Amino acid sequence: MNTPSSGANAAAETLSEEALDALSRAGTAAATADTAGAAAHRHEALLSSRAANIKQSAVRDVFEISMQPGLVSLAGGNPYLQSLPLDRLAKTAAAIIAEHGLEALQYGGGQGTQELREQICAVMAAEGILDADPENVVITAGSQSAQDVAAKVFCDPGDVILLEDPTYVGALNTFEAYEVDIQPVAGDEYGLIPSALQKTIAELQAAGKRIKLLYTIPNFNNPSGVMLAPERRQEIVDICREANILVLEDNPYGLLKFDGVLPEPLRAANPEDVLYLGSFSKIFAPGLRIGWALVPAHLKQRYYLASEAVTLCPPTFSQLLVSDYLRNYDWRGQISTYRTLYAERCAALLAALEEFMPAEVSWTRPEGGFFVWLTLPEGIDSYPLLYTGIDAGVVFVPGAAFSASHAPSNKLRLAFSAVPAETLREGVRRLAPVLAEAIAAR
Amino acid sequence: MNTPSSGANAAAETLSEEALDALSRAGTAAATADTAGAAAHRHEALLSSRAANIKQSAVRDVFEISMQPGLVSLAGGNPYLQSLPLDRLAKTAAAIIAEHGLEALQYGGGQGTQELREQICAVMAAEGILDADPENVVITAGSQSAQDVAAKVFCDPGDVILLEDPTYVGALNTFEAYEVDIQPVAGDEYGLIPSALQKTIAELQAAGKRIKLLYTIPNFNNPSGVMLAPERRQEIVDICREANILVLEDNPYGLLKFDGVLPEPLRAANPEDVLYLGSFSKIFAPGLRIGWALVPAHLKQRYYLASEAVTLCPPTFSQLLVSDYLRNYDWRGQISTYRTLYAERCAALLAALEEFMPAEVSWTRPEGGFFVWLTLPEGIDSYPLLYTGIDAGVVFVPGAAFSASHAPSNKLRLAFSAVPAETLREGVRRLAPVLAEAIAAR
Repeated sequence: MNTPSSGANAAAETLSEEALDALSRAGTAAATADTAGAAAHRHEALLSSRAANIKQSAVRDVFEISMQPGLVSLAGGNPYLQSLPLDRLAKTAAAIIAEHGLEALQYGGGQGTQELREQICAVMAAEGILDADPENVVITAGSQSAQDVAAKVFCDPGDVILLEDPTYVGALNTFEAYEVDIQPVAGDEYGLIPSALQKTIAELQAAGKRIKLLYTIPNFNNPSGVMLAPERRQEIVDICREANILVLEDNPYGLLKFDGVLPEPLRAANPEDVLYLGSFSKIFAPGLRIGWALVPAHLKQRYYLASEAVTLCPPTFSQLLVSDYLRNYDWRGQISTYRTLYAERCAALLAALEEFMPAEVSWTRPEGGFFVWLTLPEGIDSYPLLYTGIDAGVVFVPGAAFSASHAPSNKLRLAFSAVPAETLREGVRRLAPVLAEAIAAR
Repeated sequence: MNTPSSGANAAAETLSEEALDALSRAGTAAATADTAGAAAHRHEALLSSRAANIKQSAVRDVFEISMQPGLVSLAGGNPYLQSLPLDRLAKTAAAIIAEHGLEALQYGGGQGTQELREQICAVMAAEGILDADPENVVITAGSQSAQDVAAKVFCDPGDVILLEDPTYVGALNTFEAYEVDIQPVAGDEYGLIPSALQKTIAELQAAGKRIKLLYTIPNFNNPSGVMLAPERRQEIVDICREANILVLEDNPYGLLKFDGVLPEPLRAANPEDVLYLGSFSKIFAPGLRIGWALVPAHLKQRYYLASEAVTLCPPTFSQLLVSDYLRNYDWRGQISTYRTLYAERCAALLAALEEFMPAEVSWTRPEGGFFVWLTLPEGIDSYPLLYTGIDAGVVFVPGAAFSASHAPSNKLRLAFSAVPAETLREGVRRLAPVLAEAIAAR
């Protein structure tokens, strides 16, 4: 197994597409100009009304700059793949093509292979779901695609999706492409607040809104790192059931709780009321684009057919590689390795924040996942600080990226997953004066 | 390079997912019962209105039967991967992970890698498009996903997509998921008829319809095998331009013209008016799920962002494998091999049809692609013959699958791509009496 490398290399790591996406949302105000540049083109009349909801980036140019060597990226939520046994995986990939090439390179079933669906049930058992049936698993081209299909199956324009604020930028992008009315629910350091959920539902229903889904990342929310308290979980599902709202539980980071003591997923005791999304992107390899949905039995066929209409079938070769990894490798041991690695990095990041940050800055202390969420004093917009941060040699994701409102935000996200401890410290050392200056200039 | 195997094995080849899909459309009348079984479930109220448009299969059960050994499948439009150099590809896959694993297994850019987009421009040059800019190429998780994104960007519910009748079942599925009004345009043995296109447009416009796209497979249409005559091509684009309709040109089979003399794509001389879709599924390996869109420059950013909202990024490992294949293998030579192989199989199928079919049956004589399209006498519905065909040991796809109307059809599709010549002959030998009996029973 490769050992994690450290030091200079990591500084040059490029930003993940997830981060690209995240950043792309930060500057939506100035966004339409670029696309609208050809506004007079007669094809503008051909665009769907949803196309206008799919946001244009005003920050992409920044990325060209941010790729420069020497910059410390705290932006990208990339897993640390240096920790994988790449040489062995190379042999596995070769064996799959040599021995099963006619299957690996051919069209496959729209729901994914039987073997991988069974193995995914074992992964979900490790996540705390003990009764999953492979028949109700739909494998997708990454978890992003599973979100897209969920929105497709359930949401008409104007329908409401409730979600945490902040939440995963990719989900916001996906939902907005369905012209969904995205409504945040208040949370605190223990995640969504049940009474707030109840109040939001009541208000929206009183206003005549159709609420379809609650989208939630209960374990180590991206970007906040917050974990939903176990004692709130059943209450949240009960509230949704009562209001006939389906829970869309997104759990890519669940297995990465540092101490390995996992809270039960919302899905565990609620097979009928929770559509559960899982992913190999954080525990194995995002480049394979293999995610899945565990769909309530009565909704599975609808979901499956919609998924098939989007991508025909998930990547076959990728599925066989994941299957071999789950069959023949110590994937549980690899998750333990990741837990230790990410716990160390998180601790290093928190220690650096303690060491360097101005007193006015606060942050979350996650128990797992990839991210720490910083809060600046009220009234400071973190978005312009992106540019001064880059000048100082450090990149982060401004908080506005993670909110449907796109309003100015005094928050920002730091990712510790892909960066060795000493580089994390250097990044924070560079970032602190940028924030201090902004605070002083208030 | 492996040589094509022949004989008994091929009879056991399973049906492709494409065919599954195709068949799934044939029996839509009886279709809703299964899903509606739980109609009383309170979650039915949560389904989007589009969900009802995503069809349920009444024919999937047939597939369980059709998988039985000894059955000759003329249904699946699978490429004949036995013709690929699998042992060498195995080594390539290993080298990619061993040497570039951190890239291959990581998130990638939402538009796809720069190298592959440049190489795709070379593939399109072979297809007859000489001016493609990698900046305007968006790589997708299979061409199916590229169709999905096109519908997403351009079509509101009720908008019209014009298309050939019959056409690709996967495209029909995708478009119907966007609640599009699908309108067929009359064609003949030379493809779409320009005057009919003009008439259809005029009628729809007079009825107040918004026509957004013309979806067309000009080369070796799936299922009909028909090629749009070169002399009709520019006229069709001109008619669409005049009516402000974007042409969505789907060209997965273009390079597989048996004689290698390729007609110009619609896109070639019309960079602004044609959104061009390409695929490696027919010329290399569908299991990698790598397709692409060449988007008119003024629409590219919209298209790209919508694509990113669906899958975040196309599979990275797959992209690197395709790139290596295009860089280091004789991919043009492989296409020549495929041309010869498929030409031989097509000839064998046509010869068997001549030998065995009743006089009342007619069929197309394709110059490329994977499919031959049979026409039975008027009034015979090919759908029930699927079952008698299976009893006789042969599977095909009934014509109703390829039409938005789902009306009974006297057509059926036979695929010659995946089946050796002698097996093709055996399949036709089994099918002929089934059709003869239906004709006699008229």
